[in-house]
Amino acid sequence: MFTGLSAFPLTPVTAAGIDEQGLVNILARLTEAGVDSLGVLGSTGSFAYLTRTQKKRVAELAAQHAGGIPLMIGVGAYGTEQILQLADDAQTAGADALLLPVLCYQPLTDDEVFAQYETVTRHSSVPLCVYNNPRTTGFEFSDELLARVAALPGVQSVKMPGVRLEPARMQRLREILPAEVAIGVSGDEFAGRGLNGGCEVWYSVCGGLFPHCARQIVDAARAEDSGRVSELIARLEPLWQLFRRHGSIRVMAAAAGILGLSDIDCLPRPLQPLSSEACGDIAAVMTQLELR
Amino acid sequence: MFTGLSAFPLTPVTAAGIDEQGLVNILARLTEAGVDSLGVLGSTGSFAYLTRTQKKRVAELAAQHAGGIPLMIGVGAYGTEQILQLADDAQTAGADALLLPVLCYQPLTDDEVFAQYETVTRHSSVPLCVYNNPRTTGFEFSDELLARVAALPGVQSVKMPGVRLEPARMQRLREILPAEVAIGVSGDEFAGRGLNGGCEVWYSVCGGLFPHCARQIVDAARAEDSGRVSELIARLEPLWQLFRRHGSIRVMAAAAGILGLSDIDCLPRPLQPLSSEACGDIAAVMTQLELR
Repeated sequence: MFTGLSAFPLTPVTAAGIDEQGLVNILARLTEAGVDSLGVLGSTGSFAYLTRTQKKRVAELAAQHAGGIPLMIGVGAYGTEQILQLADDAQTAGADALLLPVLCYQPLTDDEVFAQYETVTRHSSVPLCVYNNPRTTGFEFSDELLARVAALPGVQSVKMPGVRLEPARMQRLREILPAEVAIGVSGDEFAGRGLNGGCEVWYSVCGGLFPHCARQIVDAARAEDSGRVSELIARLEPLWQLFRRHGSIRVMAAAAGILGLSDIDCLPRPLQPLSSEACGDIAAVMTQLELR
Repeated sequence: MFTGLSAFPLTPVTAAGIDEQGLVNILARLTEAGVDSLGVLGSTGSFAYLTRTQKKRVAELAAQHAGGIPLMIGVGAYGTEQILQLADDAQTAGADALLLPVLCYQPLTDDEVFAQYETVTRHSSVPLCVYNNPRTTGFEFSDELLARVAALPGVQSVKMPGVRLEPARMQRLREILPAEVAIGVSGDEFAGRGLNGGCEVWYSVCGGLFPHCARQIVDAARAEDSGRVSELIARLEPLWQLFRRHGSIRVMAAAAGILGLSDIDCLPRPLQPLSSEACGDIAAVMTQLELR
């Protein structure tokens, strides 16, 4: 399942809780477009902000509406006990894989991080993707730690920030990670670097709402047309500008509202919806880039 | 309640969950010493790593064993909905105040942070202490934001990292924060700077296990004997060295074990107990400084 386009949908919410119809609307776009996998309750899926009960419901809805597409569910939390509960919930709902970042409150040692992944993989019966996201978590994986964790039975992919996937590092990772562990790129703006550098999968935010657009890029990468990959990524620069300015999650939430899939105000608090002016900018970029 | 020595106890755990007897043992030391308030489920109380059910139980036990001492309970979480649930649990258990940090996953705007505190204070019926801890949360309060948040009805204290309480900043904070909002210092090594600079309360990690030692320092501050405050803090330098080396929570956990209050291994995972060598160093420092 760790190949091609992995779409990371939003979890729309209202003041009353999960917007179930909104989530189903978004999932339907992705399954109809035939993405290669779904990454529910990732960063864009607001895993950090939802209660356990809400996450359980999202996992159930995603499993019901995945239409046979492999489903990865995020189980990130600070505490190992919390993670194990979320992993149980996700697997009970029907997850085909788990996604686990390192959330640090107290600074953690490498041995503590390794032991946490070891505990979770031992406890789980589905494959796990190691989520490396220093921007949101503050935790930096060394290559050495990544190699230790990736060698655990059950680990089948690592999700890497594209911004740090320089060709030399990519080459080194391919050397030190087990061959059967898929390296995936995230951070859409740098997806071209990752895909052209040999990443097997794109963990994609924009693919979570605009799967056709993301599919074109992954198809070009599969055809080993690196020029076309770069061209398609560069074409989306106005979208990346919005991501840099507002944060990709706020932009995608506004876009879901503009598309009529959810309310414009569909982020869990403390995240707030963007201003009408910013939403106007987003609508204009969507028109310009034919994102629909 | 926001005055003097506020003791922040550990929450000891075993593989089976909360070590209830261990927690009661630690609370008994603090109530017998007559600390001015208790700060349960703070950073040292491992709020970040426990499940909602575990935190609820800790809150209940703390309320039962507080012996009439004012009880503040930490309710930190990424999401506002999660915080409101924890605030309900804490108030139901009998909290006299709530402690709330800003946990950031996505970077938050000042308006988002302000709105979160507004929502929580509106929802709560007990006073709130604003917890500013950039080291663990990655979020930096500007003085302006702190002033906005501190002006909310219900906010009665701010817990500030002593390392950033230079005299000029302390003076500025006293000018811009409402007079009735108590400024408290945390980060034990810098408590002297805070107390000598006019902080009304010490939110103390070492006071969570060694209340008599911390009490001496607070008493010296109350007597406005700044030289004695500095001298007493300086005397504890071997303890601060251990804090810097291992993290204060790991040192306090080992110390609780050495005192026979809990197991040596009493931290929730992913946090791991220190090595026997490090525990030996800690025991030696406890003997040297007469910490018992």
